[in-house]
Amino acid sequence: MNVTVHGRARHYRTVAFDPAHRAVQLIEQRLLPHEFKIVATRDFRETAAAIRDMVVRGAGAIGATAAYGLAQGALAFRGNDQRKFSRHIEIVYQTLKASRPTAVDPVNAMNSVRVATRAGHTVAEQQTLAVAAAEEFANEDVHHCEAIGQHGVGLIRNGMNILTHCNAGWLAFVDIGTATAPLFAAQARGKKFHVFCDETRPRSQGATLTAWELAQQGISHQIIADNAAGHLMQRDEIDLVIVGSDRTLGRTGEVTNKIGTYTKAVLAHRHGIPFYVAIPLSTIDWNLKRGFNIPIEERDEHEVLGAWGTVQSPKSGRRAYVRVANPTSGARNPGFDVTPPDLITGIITPVGIFRPRELWSRRRELGFTG
Amino acid sequence: MNVTVHGRARHYRTVAFDPAHRAVQLIEQRLLPHEFKIVATRDFRETAAAIRDMVVRGAGAIGATAAYGLAQGALAFRGNDQRKFSRHIEIVYQTLKASRPTAVDPVNAMNSVRVATRAGHTVAEQQTLAVAAAEEFANEDVHHCEAIGQHGVGLIRNGMNILTHCNAGWLAFVDIGTATAPLFAAQARGKKFHVFCDETRPRSQGATLTAWELAQQGISHQIIADNAAGHLMQRDEIDLVIVGSDRTLGRTGEVTNKIGTYTKAVLAHRHGIPFYVAIPLSTIDWNLKRGFNIPIEERDEHEVLGAWGTVQSPKSGRRAYVRVANPTSGARNPGFDVTPPDLITGIITPVGIFRPRELWSRRRELGFTG
Repeated sequence: MNVTVHGRARHYRTVAFDPAHRAVQLIEQRLLPHEFKIVATRDFRETAAAIRDMVVRGAGAIGATAAYGLAQGALAFRGNDQRKFSRHIEIVYQTLKASRPTAVDPVNAMNSVRVATRAGHTVAEQQTLAVAAAEEFANEDVHHCEAIGQHGVGLIRNGMNILTHCNAGWLAFVDIGTATAPLFAAQARGKKFHVFCDETRPRSQGATLTAWELAQQGISHQIIADNAAGHLMQRDEIDLVIVGSDRTLGRTGEVTNKIGTYTKAVLAHRHGIPFYVAIPLSTIDWNLKRGFNIPIEERDEHEVLGAWGTVQSPKSGRRAYVRVANPTSGARNPGFDVTPPDLITGIITPVGIFRPRELWSRRRELGFTG
Repeated sequence: MNVTVHGRARHYRTVAFDPAHRAVQLIEQRLLPHEFKIVATRDFRETAAAIRDMVVRGAGAIGATAAYGLAQGALAFRGNDQRKFSRHIEIVYQTLKASRPTAVDPVNAMNSVRVATRAGHTVAEQQTLAVAAAEEFANEDVHHCEAIGQHGVGLIRNGMNILTHCNAGWLAFVDIGTATAPLFAAQARGKKFHVFCDETRPRSQGATLTAWELAQQGISHQIIADNAAGHLMQRDEIDLVIVGSDRTLGRTGEVTNKIGTYTKAVLAHRHGIPFYVAIPLSTIDWNLKRGFNIPIEERDEHEVLGAWGTVQSPKSGRRAYVRVANPTSGARNPGFDVTPPDLITGIITPVGIFRPRELWSRRRELGFTG
């Protein structure tokens, strides 16, 4: 999407690759929204470190970063020895895989690159194929998000107020994003609408990343406390809710997403407000039989007990963590929750919009190969 | 309630009066939860400033402070001239009234003191009566909260997990509080239970004041993000919700309280969890006919866009405001919301527990004199 730097708007992807310099170019997401900076990693170990250290985050974005990292590692090999090349690729693969051990996207992305590479007969051919396959993986991520936008854009009418939760925007993917894709598509068609961004405590991804994305694209928006959406719905100030998902169960239609998503779905249901979830197909889990079995990560209590920001008063401009809570109290901090299918109007995918309970019966269209 | 200072627990009221020194003693609430300090005002102008500058806040607490301030002003008068004394009292009254012009509690409190004073035949008698009436007002506030505790304590059973929102604790009253009163009463009876405090963004009164109160009394508790209660309810980790109210409509049973209260009521209703509101009788508005007509204050957007706390990293121990949100985004910040009676199990008052729609038919018991 476009980012305005020194007054000039320019197009950026979250992740890109420069084969001439063997460099993976990443938006340094840890500095956002306070600073916009592109960093380049020069070898696969640096790329793995960038994933590990959260320079880049989000399912699609780390998938593409790992794919590029594998191509980057392949290009660094000197010589024609096939067996040595294979051993080298294995080291690159394992290094990148270990950078985010619980994530499935880097593994899937690298597998697709590795399979494509095998068609080459020489090391040089394989190197070329690796770069092409990584590029194709990233482009597919973009096309999937564009398709989500095209399927979702019809939900947005002029004058609507739309609620989002957390960040499933372009920073979490290579470009465009999932929950944000219908918004960007609607803007491109000249529709006028307003977005309320839940701040999304405790990590505030709505107030930081989603708000930054919308501001960069010039989309009208306001941040609200997570407590405020119910009141706005009561007063008819919200017409539509669109969120993303970290894992959607193909068998039940249950949606796992950032903590607080379930609350917004319950509120939307009470008020008869449509509640949509936008997902790439890679997010669908075809195995799990019950949402209750999804492990819910309990995160560090300090996320709840304080906040990160830029010191304003007394003004210093420094980044700091402030303790907000009573010093002698602790916290519970579940990171995700599960929204049942009866609260979800539709699931927006790259191949169309589905009712959550339809996913299983239409699994072939949705890429299920089991 | 008890506060532990230098390892020793001692009983404090939020507001107290020392006639010998003509001093109103206040817990300096702006320093909590980071520092506990009692400040004394030496004359009524200082007392008015303490109300204005939020040294003391909360309906019952500022009522009692104004009552004591009037007595303090009366005691400062020298001489026997009745007319001069009356003129002096009028100045004191208007000065204290102007310290929080929209609040009704200081006015009601001072009126009760002024009426009592009229029984005196000399200035000295009137001064004595003013002090006695202010003391009686404060004691009544305590007795009402104690009565709320006695009526509410039966709701709490051993092993329960109880959710609270915002702060309707003893710091908002002279002692004990409303939403907290059943908790303190249950603790006094040796019941074991656990409290989840909603952090209550954007001003975080749950994470700061309620958590501090519970920690001081040694009540097991954890702070949660406002987003987390829905998930905990899904997992059967919340058995009861008790909140306070800023204004409850006697005619409809609608409850105005801190933003986010409505959301918790909707969630509790979905999960069949009892939802109670604890209030003093002074909170009941017998006039308004529709909750929709309650003016909802839109507060400063900076409350949503950042947070106040103690700088931890890099460690400095200073109090600071940090900007969390994207620097180019704004916010909406409604301060309160309205919960309809169908979501409320019961309203705990000093004279018993009522269904919200019963308030009007039982208005005589509840002090309605219209």
